[in-house]
Amino acid sequence: MEGTDLQKLIQLLAKLPGLGPRSGRRIALQLIKKRETLLRPLSEAMEQVADTIHTCSTCGNLDTQPLCGICANANRDKSLLCVVEDIGDLWALERSMAYKGYYHVLGGTLSALDGRGPDDLTIEKLLLRAKGVEIKEIIMALNATVEGQTTIHYLTDRLNTECPDLKITHLAHGVPVGGELDYLDDGTLMAALRARRAA
Amino acid sequence: MEGTDLQKLIQLLAKLPGLGPRSGRRIALQLIKKRETLLRPLSEAMEQVADTIHTCSTCGNLDTQPLCGICANANRDKSLLCVVEDIGDLWALERSMAYKGYYHVLGGTLSALDGRGPDDLTIEKLLLRAKGVEIKEIIMALNATVEGQTTIHYLTDRLNTECPDLKITHLAHGVPVGGELDYLDDGTLMAALRARRAA
Repeated sequence: MEGTDLQKLIQLLAKLPGLGPRSGRRIALQLIKKRETLLRPLSEAMEQVADTIHTCSTCGNLDTQPLCGICANANRDKSLLCVVEDIGDLWALERSMAYKGYYHVLGGTLSALDGRGPDDLTIEKLLLRAKGVEIKEIIMALNATVEGQTTIHYLTDRLNTECPDLKITHLAHGVPVGGELDYLDDGTLMAALRARRAA
Repeated sequence: MEGTDLQKLIQLLAKLPGLGPRSGRRIALQLIKKRETLLRPLSEAMEQVADTIHTCSTCGNLDTQPLCGICANANRDKSLLCVVEDIGDLWALERSMAYKGYYHVLGGTLSALDGRGPDDLTIEKLLLRAKGVEIKEIIMALNATVEGQTTIHYLTDRLNTECPDLKITHLAHGVPVGGELDYLDDGTLMAALRARRAA
């Protein structure tokens, strides 16, 4: 009924993460209503990104240059390397403006269930970078999930063997800022208690 | 940090209905990861739709032809005209496969709050179409909101004056199929009781 071009657009929109057929239809309608202010600019921005955005050959971030803006910035702290699962996590840390070192994007976590082993991640590259003379500390900023923590253990083992002088740290667990104790899970509460600090 | 092209894409995605900066970033990342299977096809489908999809000059539906597939289909029931607020409602009725007449898309509802008067909707066109010799019944399939019901009243008044022989109906109110009484609002329950039918 909607014409095949439109139907194809809706099907593609419905494949985007978090969307489905209903939101796909809703977005398609909105796009057509705002043809010149939204539909065309979005289509052009997508074409542009498809043509110009590349994965950084060093850290795995996305940028228009072969070496990303962070890796190319010589003013950052060369003694710190922060390991993240995905580019979205790198962006989140950059938004926090709390970290001034360099990054390494793993590309996921080890997962027996999903059949992801060490060779599917950028672990060899990480070990290579960890041997750099200037690096003093590696911060494991993986998600606090079972897979994330397993991957941290594996990486810590490998790094301890190959670069015994490196300091390896992970993010603190605890009560999220603004969080209410009543709504926290037991694991988080336990971790927050264990890691309690002098007021 | 993300490169300006990417930032622009995220900003545009965040403007889509139901999305925000967070889902915009998530979708942008997914698009880049599936560059050839999702990003390029979606961009092309959007370009295609922007170039080819037009509003039907008769009913207001969207199609690649100046006269949409429904209006161009002579096999539908010419005695029925169904008035809907938006194209999404037309699609919903078509998916139900319960209606075989023609449509008229109003383009919204009357709303004093949003400053939408009769001239902002396709009401004159509807009155013109309602005078067609073959039309016997006009079905008001507007949303069961205050604005929708107000608009039905206004349209019914105008149609009764200008086309006194037309039958004007609206959708039944009642318990949604699969709905539980306990979760229904009082208004719906009252309407369902008042409109009760012999079992």
